[in-house]
Amino acid sequence: MDLKSFRPVSGLDLPRFAGIATFMRLPHIGLDDPRLVDVDIGLIGVPWDGGTTNRPGPRHAPRQLRDQSSMIRFENAVTRIVPYDLARCADLGDVGPNPADVADTLARITAFYDQVRDRGITPLSAGGDHLCTLPILRALARHRPLGMVHFDSHTDLYKSYFGGFLFTHGTPFRRAVEEGLLDPARVCMIGIRGSAYDFEDRDFATAVGIRVIPIDEFHARGVEDVMAEARSIAGTGETYVSYDIDFIDPAFAPGTGTPEVGGPNSYQALQVVRGLRGLDIVGADLMEVSPPFDPTGATAYLGANVLFELLCVLAECRARKTAS
Amino acid sequence: MDLKSFRPVSGLDLPRFAGIATFMRLPHIGLDDPRLVDVDIGLIGVPWDGGTTNRPGPRHAPRQLRDQSSMIRFENAVTRIVPYDLARCADLGDVGPNPADVADTLARITAFYDQVRDRGITPLSAGGDHLCTLPILRALARHRPLGMVHFDSHTDLYKSYFGGFLFTHGTPFRRAVEEGLLDPARVCMIGIRGSAYDFEDRDFATAVGIRVIPIDEFHARGVEDVMAEARSIAGTGETYVSYDIDFIDPAFAPGTGTPEVGGPNSYQALQVVRGLRGLDIVGADLMEVSPPFDPTGATAYLGANVLFELLCVLAECRARKTAS
Amino acid sequence: MDLKSFRPVSGLDLPRFAGIATFMRLPHIGLDDPRLVDVDIGLIGVPWDGGTTNRPGPRHAPRQLRDQSSMIRFENAVTRIVPYDLARCADLGDVGPNPADVADTLARITAFYDQVRDRGITPLSAGGDHLCTLPILRALARHRPLGMVHFDSHTDLYKSYFGGFLFTHGTPFRRAVEEGLLDPARVCMIGIRGSAYDFEDRDFATAVGIRVIPIDEFHARGVEDVMAEARSIAGTGETYVSYDIDFIDPAFAPGTGTPEVGGPNSYQALQVVRGLRGLDIVGADLMEVSPPFDPTGATAYLGANVLFELLCVLAECRARKTAS
Amino acid sequence: MDLKSFRPVSGLDLPRFAGIATFMRLPHIGLDDPRLVDVDIGLIGVPWDGGTTNRPGPRHAPRQLRDQSSMIRFENAVTRIVPYDLARCADLGDVGPNPADVADTLARITAFYDQVRDRGITPLSAGGDHLCTLPILRALARHRPLGMVHFDSHTDLYKSYFGGFLFTHGTPFRRAVEEGLLDPARVCMIGIRGSAYDFEDRDFATAVGIRVIPIDEFHARGVEDVMAEARSIAGTGETYVSYDIDFIDPAFAPGTGTPEVGGPNSYQALQVVRGLRGLDIVGADLMEVSPPFDPTGATAYLGANVLFELLCVLAECRARKTAS
Amino acid sequence: MDLKSFRPVSGLDLPRFAGIATFMRLPHIGLDDPRLVDVDIGLIGVPWDGGTTNRPGPRHAPRQLRDQSSMIRFENAVTRIVPYDLARCADLGDVGPNPADVADTLARITAFYDQVRDRGITPLSAGGDHLCTLPILRALARHRPLGMVHFDSHTDLYKSYFGGFLFTHGTPFRRAVEEGLLDPARVCMIGIRGSAYDFEDRDFATAVGIRVIPIDEFHARGVEDVMAEARSIAGTGETYVSYDIDFIDPAFAPGTGTPEVGGPNSYQALQVVRGLRGLDIVGADLMEVSPPFDPTGATAYLGANVLFELLCVLAECRARKTAS
Amino acid sequence: MDLKSFRPVSGLDLPRFAGIATFMRLPHIGLDDPRLVDVDIGLIGVPWDGGTTNRPGPRHAPRQLRDQSSMIRFENAVTRIVPYDLARCADLGDVGPNPADVADTLARITAFYDQVRDRGITPLSAGGDHLCTLPILRALARHRPLGMVHFDSHTDLYKSYFGGFLFTHGTPFRRAVEEGLLDPARVCMIGIRGSAYDFEDRDFATAVGIRVIPIDEFHARGVEDVMAEARSIAGTGETYVSYDIDFIDPAFAPGTGTPEVGGPNSYQALQVVRGLRGLDIVGADLMEVSPPFDPTGATAYLGANVLFELLCVLAECRARKTAS
Repeated sequence: MDLKSFRPVSGLDLPRFAGIATFMRLPHIGLDDPRLVDVDIGLIGVPWDGGTTNRPGPRHAPRQLRDQSSMIRFENAVTRIVPYDLARCADLGDVGPNPADVADTLARITAFYDQVRDRGITPLSAGGDHLCTLPILRALARHRPLGMVHFDSHTDLYKSYFGGFLFTHGTPFRRAVEEGLLDPARVCMIGIRGSAYDFEDRDFATAVGIRVIPIDEFHARGVEDVMAEARSIAGTGETYVSYDIDFIDPAFAPGTGTPEVGGPNSYQALQVVRGLRGLDIVGADLMEVSPPFDPTGATAYLGANVLFELLCVLAECRARKTAS
Repeated sequence: MDLKSFRPVSGLDLPRFAGIATFMRLPHIGLDDPRLVDVDIGLIGVPWDGGTTNRPGPRHAPRQLRDQSSMIRFENAVTRIVPYDLARCADLGDVGPNPADVADTLARITAFYDQVRDRGITPLSAGGDHLCTLPILRALARHRPLGMVHFDSHTDLYKSYFGGFLFTHGTPFRRAVEEGLLDPARVCMIGIRGSAYDFEDRDFATAVGIRVIPIDEFHARGVEDVMAEARSIAGTGETYVSYDIDFIDPAFAPGTGTPEVGGPNSYQALQVVRGLRGLDIVGADLMEVSPPFDPTGATAYLGANVLFELLCVLAECRARKTAS
Repeated sequence: MDLKSFRPVSGLDLPRFAGIATFMRLPHIGLDDPRLVDVDIGLIGVPWDGGTTNRPGPRHAPRQLRDQSSMIRFENAVTRIVPYDLARCADLGDVGPNPADVADTLARITAFYDQVRDRGITPLSAGGDHLCTLPILRALARHRPLGMVHFDSHTDLYKSYFGGFLFTHGTPFRRAVEEGLLDPARVCMIGIRGSAYDFEDRDFATAVGIRVIPIDEFHARGVEDVMAEARSIAGTGETYVSYDIDFIDPAFAPGTGTPEVGGPNSYQALQVVRGLRGLDIVGADLMEVSPPFDPTGATAYLGANVLFELLCVLAECRARKTAS
Repeated sequence: MDLKSFRPVSGLDLPRFAGIATFMRLPHIGLDDPRLVDVDIGLIGVPWDGGTTNRPGPRHAPRQLRDQSSMIRFENAVTRIVPYDLARCADLGDVGPNPADVADTLARITAFYDQVRDRGITPLSAGGDHLCTLPILRALARHRPLGMVHFDSHTDLYKSYFGGFLFTHGTPFRRAVEEGLLDPARVCMIGIRGSAYDFEDRDFATAVGIRVIPIDEFHARGVEDVMAEARSIAGTGETYVSYDIDFIDPAFAPGTGTPEVGGPNSYQALQVVRGLRGLDIVGADLMEVSPPFDPTGATAYLGANVLFELLCVLAECRARKTAS
Repeated sequence: MDLKSFRPVSGLDLPRFAGIATFMRLPHIGLDDPRLVDVDIGLIGVPWDGGTTNRPGPRHAPRQLRDQSSMIRFENAVTRIVPYDLARCADLGDVGPNPADVADTLARITAFYDQVRDRGITPLSAGGDHLCTLPILRALARHRPLGMVHFDSHTDLYKSYFGGFLFTHGTPFRRAVEEGLLDPARVCMIGIRGSAYDFEDRDFATAVGIRVIPIDEFHARGVEDVMAEARSIAGTGETYVSYDIDFIDPAFAPGTGTPEVGGPNSYQALQVVRGLRGLDIVGADLMEVSPPFDPTGATAYLGANVLFELLCVLAECRARKTAS
Repeated sequence: MDLKSFRPVSGLDLPRFAGIATFMRLPHIGLDDPRLVDVDIGLIGVPWDGGTTNRPGPRHAPRQLRDQSSMIRFENAVTRIVPYDLARCADLGDVGPNPADVADTLARITAFYDQVRDRGITPLSAGGDHLCTLPILRALARHRPLGMVHFDSHTDLYKSYFGGFLFTHGTPFRRAVEEGLLDPARVCMIGIRGSAYDFEDRDFATAVGIRVIPIDEFHARGVEDVMAEARSIAGTGETYVSYDIDFIDPAFAPGTGTPEVGGPNSYQALQVVRGLRGLDIVGADLMEVSPPFDPTGATAYLGANVLFELLCVLAECRARKTAS
């Protein structure tokens, strides 16, 4: 496996503020690039927020995340993982959305990820609002339901908005369960908090068997205990990881549309990802970073760190499966 | 005519930072309020940006404009008009949009303005993106086409986007002409500038007889000469005024989604409105203020001043027609 | 009890960015509104910072808090309290201050709260600087001293400033004790920290029997232990709750005039309010939010969450007393 | 005359970002410093905004102006004046205000300027809100009324606020005329604009013979013509210059409490000061810079340039009088 | 000439917020890319500010300019030029600087541009501080001195700083004249202003025959007259164009290290570039955009528009020479 | 010992926003001031960032730290130390750097600190980037190696950058060990984290015997345990303390060039300094505050608090040694 062509540019060679910004300073390899056949893990931008019911902005996230990710180096200081030693990584570019049409955009996203899946590439996605996860799951879970570990302050399990509208960033996982893309018994949602219109979403979770760990339980038990349970729920089957940046307290991640105070700090934000090690992860995403509400870029920078932690876990998983 | 109940709260009585923010500190009179029958001019918020193809945000404008408008006093220092001496003014609240559905929202807006029109109220609207003007025109121009004076850096006359999508903030006046809501021979567009994908919009303008005054002509001729022509084009018939905040140079009005550099300054921004005096204006709007791109509120404050200038012209027009 | 007319507008009906901003999107019922007789809990703005010795700004807080409170929904996710099911709530508007005269404004505030007290309405106030609490206490504690739980980084117990001036935001509780508005033995101050000119304030606290829990003790003991003691100090008598936003660490609440680093995080900021459950609370306030130092609105948003937690506790208390 | 000890530090020796910030990087010479006897022109900060009726902040201006003034070099590029070749200049420090008492602070300011006047030092002041000019005039005009050239968007000639309160930043010149500190026939106010509560201020101006040049006349006539008239009004008698930063359009000077759109640009802002050359100026000030509304420091930087232009005119005037 | 492969991505196909950001959304073609042989005009980033004596930041400019340039469309609305119809354009990436060594970086830049020159590519550069222009000229003017039109508020003709240091952003054109890279008789500097340490730079200009047009002359004569003179000075010989963003007034372009108030507005900023049409331009640059001082990106957006105007002029020139 | 002349101005006398800003509002006593002989502890600014490899800015820190330090009062609320009762403190001004030459600036800094050391003054320094610590150590450790407690997210032990360049803010302690300025066995580095290019720095630490406590160990063990070990490592010998602001989590201290998420909170940031009590400290610094990335000043304010905690420890140490 030729890893050398799929490494980031080093800041010791070209300063981190220089050069065209790609995810982690990786090579840009579009879907029509011949090098695509060699890619193991593809970082993909989904610049769309057509499902947002409140404050818009995540359509701008992939570009800002690329910019901030140029600050990240190669080696994980805690786990000592160097993902680029384990897998061939690349920036696959952005899915092209239609900002004026929800249905058309959902179809465009699924079509893009169908190609990624067919190539055997593990996708690591940067949204976009949380509705973007639904069309990704439609591609990745086409042939069987997946387990899921979901970090968020909201369940995104609501039935509908504004008098019956089914596709918003508050409904993707309701749809995913209904469409058979997720196996509820293998889904765990962590960090849920904030005031609520009602508890219809959590009643649905209970009814179908999704495990919801609210924030007070999270703070009381601590990261290690919670993540042990999450791993146990996801089990040994194929699992997706969806990370909403509003999982993190808004003092650490202000740039998002529906922040909820009282959340985890930035150290816990990284720890939970490290707690995914050992799972069989077939894809992951980071959603809801909103640059218009992130004037200093701090949220995108923390988000880029979360992406890097996810990349380390994905690379380790991919290497383990290749080896076995 | 009882004008006393329809005046703003004075900053000499209650400081301008105090009190619940309504447009110009006017009384809030919703569509179901019995006082509605006495309203002459209604200020209305249209918090929706579902037609935005690029940087979103105008859905937040009505609230920020209300806040900033509390800085405005009663009397126009240049024209000496006190609109509240001429007409009974009120804040009619916001149209309730559906952020997840374009067609539904267009229908909701028209339904709201149908009521306003039927009550004989002259609407002064605060968007929202520029697509909001289309459903307003569908109500106001139901029975005959209107003339229009349009301040903007874009013609908003494009045919479609993203492979045929017809309803974006770049297309409202194309649709309005097609639907017979505007009389092209009585339409004048002022301040047009910026790079272009092509000139399809301007070719359409030429074909149907809309007069487009580009920015270099505006700067060369000056406000008075340009506005004399605009009045001549609009003539004596019923006329609508649509003011896109991006008409103004972004140094003065940064908070908008598609700024174009090289525009008029803030003095010219007010002068052009004063140049509308004498026209028969049946409605006016200010569109495309985008608070997420306006961190200091400067754009909304300038926008509130533009709204006040429009209000002065509307009140004078209304009083003149009532008198005659 | 007709609760239906005193509920917030739902974001599922009207998006949260739309509509005129009132506290929690509640109906606005001024002191001269006939519906006032049915109000149980009144949210009141006190837009005044005439007692500020350092960086001004809290006069702008009520408006910004109203705006940010539109993000809050109905139901408390942790305590499961829906305050609007327990009490009839309304936005009573702002007290009108005189920014150019301290004595006049103190009198205006007390006059406003005299009416609120006489109507049997429990006030939940949003300042303003902390001097505003003094005239509120003059109304609420007219007939007997109150206990108080006070969250702050400063005791606000200083004797005077600038050579003998008695009324600043550093002196309200010294005055309140002197005037017999507070029962020192039932007062507990939590979170005190920051460098000091001297310890005259704490010596006074010791002398009169006020319990001060400094921040190092707070961090060492934890929220639950501290709040148990606070409840024990306040006892079963009538108690006021005063919450200075600078109680919270400035990373979470930067928008305040005299921030002190090293404070509680946002989760603890909410937990302490939940720890007030069971007390007999006759009024509460949130003070010192300063929008000019809060460019992103994050402080006001956290403040709105604190107000909501206070509202839940007040509603529960009110319902308990009504029931008994 | 030893000019050498009264020159700024050069940025070619010590970079402009280095060193303790004084006005123009001049030596700091307090009122009790023995070097005071040699000072010709004293730059003085008046950090107080107790007269502000709306948005506070100018108490922070002297410090920010000192910081930004370190960007200014020695030589005026247009007039070629090097003020430090003409007069011995120093930073005299700040007047100590009492933020909690208006009357006390007015007395403190006058006492400070009494000393400055008695020493024969020409003061160049940096406010503070515009009420600060009144106590300065009480010192400088003790023995005879002065003429005044006043750049502002407001006349500051109002009678009273909030039911009779006489001392706010909207009333200083009404008081100054009443107290005989200004000779109305030698007063010219330039740039007046913005909406108004009423025209009571301008009626007073007319009644006493103050010349008010509103902004539309300013734009129509141009700087040179307007300043020729201003010089003619002020005549050959002793004259004070008061410059409110809100004279300038808020796109150039956003950091102020009561901005009015449609004002002069930054080039005109400097030109008008150059148009003062030849007058007999006994003092000057720059007021109403408000750092909390000036996040980037752009207003203070422009303000520092205005101060430098004023310094050049004062130094030239001082040298001319010394020579004659 | 195959122009099709060298066109920007259209915002009608892929929204402007999507996709990896390159200059004008052009294809990225590095120096080792085989497509380089077909490039006519290369946009190049020079992310280095090692010559900055005051406030640093331009090292971050190329990335921010790429981001903002995605807002630019194809066609110049005033001149009707579509540069991509006239020349094959590409983003050549960034020169890799050494932020810790001035001499090494100067050599690296010249080496990069030697390659560009040898390929016959016309470079359009985005700095970087103004010292970057010197090594570019060393490559482009290797074989004969060039004329230059220079837009700036400073001459950058100083001899040295900090006791003899020769290479800063205040000295590049002194060095360039000394090294024979510029023909002083064919150099014109426009917009010079701001306070000065001394006039040593202008004395040098006079001595060698460089024409300096200060800002007061610029404002008095107007753009057309000034640019006619500039064209006359540059004549028919090969000419370089260097555009310092601080030429523009800081209200329009705040994001720069040494802003000088009183400059041209944004319309004039574009007009002057259009006034270069007809010259024989062999390279151009835009320098001194400083993102850390440009929080909203407004400066970079205006800068991207300036780059586009320069690109139009370069493309027209290139096409004319190819045709002849 | 006359302590009275070396105390800060009190905010009860002169409000904290007033007056020329010096560190802690202490008297400014330059190296040529006769009062220097009486100074025990000197606060010194080092406004230079010539060693920065990524995002520049710390050259602006001393001025912003002075400004924010005016918020600090006299008495430490936790340790009850009043440093001004224990030692004569003064602001010694800034070292004058040469922003265009690394070697020259290193020499200038050492020359300045040679004088400070020769006078027997304990220096408390405010950088500047972390390379500034090297020339300080060259002065302070001239005669014997020092121990060091180092708070940071990076070891700053790298060998070289950009192909062999030895002097950057990533290399000072590698140089200091090589030059014999530090005794590796008495050096402890706390808080190290973030992704890494490689582990060459930590391998060096291990090889020479420096103790590195990474962030996960810090979080697992807690402040008290970690600081007990740090004190044990530093022992009874003379020790330097170097505090990089990026030790603290960027939610609390965003204004720095190379932030690393997942760090200590603001309470821990102060606690660790208190944990230094008892050591024999001969100098201390706070480095890497970067105002261009700190728009609200929050980082500088926290930094000023860290400086105050360091000052308390230094004063206590100095008094103890004087007493013994």
